[in-house]
Amino acid sequence: MKNKYNINDFNFHYKIETRWKDLDAFQHINNAVYATYIESARVDLFKRWGIPGTNTGKSIIMASLKINYLKQLKHPSSLIIGQRVSRLGKTSFDIESIIFDEEQNAVCQAIVVAVCFDFDSQKSVDVYESIISDYEG
Amino acid sequence: MKNKYNINDFNFHYKIETRWKDLDAFQHINNAVYATYIESARVDLFKRWGIPGTNTGKSIIMASLKINYLKQLKHPSSLIIGQRVSRLGKTSFDIESIIFDEEQNAVCQAIVVAVCFDFDSQKSVDVYESIISDYEG
Amino acid sequence: MKNKYNINDFNFHYKIETRWKDLDAFQHINNAVYATYIESARVDLFKRWGIPGTNTGKSIIMASLKINYLKQLKHPSSLIIGQRVSRLGKTSFDIESIIFDEEQNAVCQAIVVAVCFDFDSQKSVDVYESIISDYEG
Amino acid sequence: MKNKYNINDFNFHYKIETRWKDLDAFQHINNAVYATYIESARVDLFKRWGIPGTNTGKSIIMASLKINYLKQLKHPSSLIIGQRVSRLGKTSFDIESIIFDEEQNAVCQAIVVAVCFDFDSQKSVDVYESIISDYEG
Repeated sequence: MKNKYNINDFNFHYKIETRWKDLDAFQHINNAVYATYIESARVDLFKRWGIPGTNTGKSIIMASLKINYLKQLKHPSSLIIGQRVSRLGKTSFDIESIIFDEEQNAVCQAIVVAVCFDFDSQKSVDVYESIISDYEG
Repeated sequence: MKNKYNINDFNFHYKIETRWKDLDAFQHINNAVYATYIESARVDLFKRWGIPGTNTGKSIIMASLKINYLKQLKHPSSLIIGQRVSRLGKTSFDIESIIFDEEQNAVCQAIVVAVCFDFDSQKSVDVYESIISDYEG
Repeated sequence: MKNKYNINDFNFHYKIETRWKDLDAFQHINNAVYATYIESARVDLFKRWGIPGTNTGKSIIMASLKINYLKQLKHPSSLIIGQRVSRLGKTSFDIESIIFDEEQNAVCQAIVVAVCFDFDSQKSVDVYESIISDYEG
Repeated sequence: MKNKYNINDFNFHYKIETRWKDLDAFQHINNAVYATYIESARVDLFKRWGIPGTNTGKSIIMASLKINYLKQLKHPSSLIIGQRVSRLGKTSFDIESIIFDEEQNAVCQAIVVAVCFDFDSQKSVDVYESIISDYEG
């Protein structure tokens, strides 16, 4: 794990702390909560790209989410989420996110397929320039 | 959507109701909450298979989760989650889950790759008979 | 418990089902989740009163929440939340909510102090007629 | 608000960051989530007192929670929760918690009535010495 993903390969870093309520009845951080961690990091990236936090104008919608679970997590843990634009299409693109624990082990790897979408015209649109310039070709 | 997935193709049905808090700042049911809906349905299936709700003995762990988002959801909505064992491997298997809304439109499709795991020996084990007999070959 | 609160003393009934993720590391329904159950019931009551789901116009805001925990809850449980307007003030009022389990035992009792508030003028306003007429004096 | 509560009057400080999912459809941090923030801080305090994270032996259970909502919260916010033991009884005690925002304004004030409880004997027991010594008389 440790060697497969390196935090330095991800140009966006987002810190997040576990909460006690993130634990489930198995006393591990719940699988679905990983999606919430990744979402908080993603919204931060959207802010960098000037995406509004409302259902208006030029925005981004999610087409799919894939999470590969690599390691169980305890509470409390201080996590860093590494993110990068890992694929560019015409109207869609991928964000790869890795949650790293304190020892920089990968806890999970996730790919979000996102679509640039204009809420006013209700149509998908070309990937925004700000995203293209963040693509790690 | 409606035609692509048919609830009658799924032999396990689980009902779930949205909650107001499932909405996010976009006033839609939050993407990560779909993972929680699917999880509640899956835990119900695990009970059918006699899987204990603790980290002991013969259990099942998740290797990955993939969700394809097909439709946005409002609150309140009464949902039915259709589930089936869609793939059988030696120690792993897939569960396909579809969340259907009141009009039986598919809201999302999800595939969980699950692994039969013995917490006592800390090893993956052959897929349990109860799961094999539920496989819709 | 059973005798202290009677569901027939509450004129509004709201059904809610537990979810697996509502459990916490103690394998009981998490204390904070009770607030979410009560909120879902309350939002349903607000709809009856014509309160919009947005930060505009004549709305209702929460001043305080008090929950008395009476009983632990397991998953799955089918709950009924009984609600009533238990106090009327000039601009504020109380909602008493009881979560009842399948045996109609009270799981918790909650009092929300709510304030009628006009988001446009940013001022508290007299309690709305619809609420007054629902007061069980 | 700022003057009413002073963070220096609370001897335990716990940091917590909002998450995007903590927002609700009103685009404010959801009222029920405040209970989760306070809980994370409280569990940290329990660890200081040597309370186990399981339903065994000498533990602490919650009798009630009262939250006074003073201020709405946006995301992202960096919060500090000030905590103190504000009342000592024979088998019960109170924890007062204040959530402070970046400007040290009080966002809410909460009182938890907690009971020292022995899960083995299923009886309430005298308040533990570690808690008595933390009481700010």
